[in-house]
Amino acid sequence: MSATVDTLPERLLLGSGPSPVPEPVLHALARPTLGHLDPAFGEVMDEIGDLLRAAFVTENEVAFPISGTGSAGMEAMVANLIEPGERVVCGVHGLFGERMADELARHGADVVRVEAEWGRAIDPQALIDAVAAGPAPAALFVVHGETSTGVAQPLDGLADAIHDRDGLLLVDCVTSLTGHPLRLDEAGVDAAFSGSQKCLNAPPGLAPFTVGARALEKLRARKTRVPSWYFDLNLILAYVNAEGARTYHHTAPTNMNVALREALRIAVVDEWLATRWERHRRAHEALRSAFDALGMPRLAPEGEALHPLLAVRVPDGIDEAAVRRALLLEHDIEISGGLGPLAGKVWRIGVMGVGAQREPQEALITAVAAELGHDTGEALVALADGWSA
Amino acid sequence: MSATVDTLPERLLLGSGPSPVPEPVLHALARPTLGHLDPAFGEVMDEIGDLLRAAFVTENEVAFPISGTGSAGMEAMVANLIEPGERVVCGVHGLFGERMADELARHGADVVRVEAEWGRAIDPQALIDAVAAGPAPAALFVVHGETSTGVAQPLDGLADAIHDRDGLLLVDCVTSLTGHPLRLDEAGVDAAFSGSQKCLNAPPGLAPFTVGARALEKLRARKTRVPSWYFDLNLILAYVNAEGARTYHHTAPTNMNVALREALRIAVVDEWLATRWERHRRAHEALRSAFDALGMPRLAPEGEALHPLLAVRVPDGIDEAAVRRALLLEHDIEISGGLGPLAGKVWRIGVMGVGAQREPQEALITAVAAELGHDTGEALVALADGWSA
Repeated sequence: MSATVDTLPERLLLGSGPSPVPEPVLHALARPTLGHLDPAFGEVMDEIGDLLRAAFVTENEVAFPISGTGSAGMEAMVANLIEPGERVVCGVHGLFGERMADELARHGADVVRVEAEWGRAIDPQALIDAVAAGPAPAALFVVHGETSTGVAQPLDGLADAIHDRDGLLLVDCVTSLTGHPLRLDEAGVDAAFSGSQKCLNAPPGLAPFTVGARALEKLRARKTRVPSWYFDLNLILAYVNAEGARTYHHTAPTNMNVALREALRIAVVDEWLATRWERHRRAHEALRSAFDALGMPRLAPEGEALHPLLAVRVPDGIDEAAVRRALLLEHDIEISGGLGPLAGKVWRIGVMGVGAQREPQEALITAVAAELGHDTGEALVALADGWSA
Repeated sequence: MSATVDTLPERLLLGSGPSPVPEPVLHALARPTLGHLDPAFGEVMDEIGDLLRAAFVTENEVAFPISGTGSAGMEAMVANLIEPGERVVCGVHGLFGERMADELARHGADVVRVEAEWGRAIDPQALIDAVAAGPAPAALFVVHGETSTGVAQPLDGLADAIHDRDGLLLVDCVTSLTGHPLRLDEAGVDAAFSGSQKCLNAPPGLAPFTVGARALEKLRARKTRVPSWYFDLNLILAYVNAEGARTYHHTAPTNMNVALREALRIAVVDEWLATRWERHRRAHEALRSAFDALGMPRLAPEGEALHPLLAVRVPDGIDEAAVRRALLLEHDIEISGGLGPLAGKVWRIGVMGVGAQREPQEALITAVAAELGHDTGEALVALADGWSA
């Protein structure tokens, strides 16, 4: 017999996501359900658009949440902006780049992979060279925040390179949005997707999404129909961007959107975005120092770390899965293990939104030290020093 | 400035969906978020599977919610079970049949339409004849509960016809699930999708989905890859049906699923399914009598009505959009207008779950009579008579 609603456990979510959802967001989530065509809900959607523009740092007219999880945002991007036979340069330096390469292939793209080992960023010059070589690519895709490795991908020079060839710059910022510096317009990004359950601290189920003018132009110039009805932007925009005359497409997840609006308000109104980025950086560095003191160094080298996700190496001889299980079941703290080639070798720790604070990190460090049989002293001092630095 | 969380209106949702969400479901929705790989959440998913099997009246091993709205369920069905070039017979007697025909075409199917006018069911013999004629179709698709017209489609003889030609019977039961008699296994249905926000009274955002052995066999025998990464059942089932060893695919919308479990418990444990179906029938007939008394007859003829959705004709001379707007803004009651050829001509009223009760119907009838300048007496008497019949 599974737990009833009121006996479900309460976990401190410090894994790769979902992240902790603060009480005001849960409260918003549980408001009485509104209809998707109710003008009051229309205003919520409009405000989400404004808040997303602030979060993405863009003036794109189109900014709204896809009605699915982050991966649905990836699929919406490809289904709308890539046509069969088009050449796409795809950066692969972790699971989410692999996933995109798979998605592109399913949509008939000619995928040119540019790789880096898991745990490193891709040299931007390698991406630029791939874009410049051979027939003009329709797009260049990179994962800005690689959740599988805790690496942030520099975007320098990418927009110029792909725009010179009349292609689009497409970016996955699922884990980086509002937690790691990213200004879409400044970086020349033409379309991006994210997830509600990372630095925004909303529950999983929505994928913040934005496309700029260049991408919309490509959508309008398609030779083939968008192969997905559910993700067809032509249909969705008649609902989302319709200034008071919304045409029904699908039934928007209204409760989830009311919650997302609240999460976005907390992220970009209650806290200045630059302050928020800086808080995530400090939180990352403090936690990193603490794990260093526990003998678990960061996977990403200096200068390549993704602040909202700290991946640390687990020393040989530790049954990492057993320790994670104990953290979850004995301490009610969730962290994540490694994926793919990093399975069994790293832990992935979320530093996301309200999780990027000293108190939850202290709880985590204390529990990890207890499970590993370490003294907590040095690690907690390192954490405290990090926060007062 | 849009309404804040606590000034958002509270509506009585008696339109085509979302339907009213009861307090225990909202309470479940707002439980602290769980991770998608937490064993406690795994148990929730397993229980949802059992409850969905009860709701669909099937023994299918595969029964879970697609992470998107009802239309995402439609897309998942087509992306997995239809390959380019396959012939598919598609019943079209309203918007949702049209939508499926569009979806099938986008996936490269050769679509054979079998139509009925909006407001009528399709003659099953016409579907059977279409299946028997010409090259063998890969599938026969029908909308069991046509939400755009309030018509229930009989499924008699369909399974035998399509199975004789080695094809699949595919059904949209978005609006009918737990509100109108439907036993998937008895009807020989091979795959079906629904929505969380209709008779189940959960918020919108999930699409209950099931596939049987014959459909799984077809999935496994595909010559082409599933064109969607997000909806690829091969990947999703490694998470959903994995008996304790769930492989991460996408981040399941955990709060929404905890809410759906509660809604399903209310629908199929707290109330017997047969009792629930009968309650929806009585509620439909009572409301229909009341609208008859207001001079607004039902669109669907006797024997073809979909109990959870009553579509009534709006007499000439009434500005139906203005009345609906007044119902919403003055009375906080949402009903739905007509779609496509029925726009401006009908109202669509939900009779779904907790909405299929006398009290909300009295509120609606009273408000409608007031807005139309009718005396409420006769209509309320008709309603009362309907409920005591």
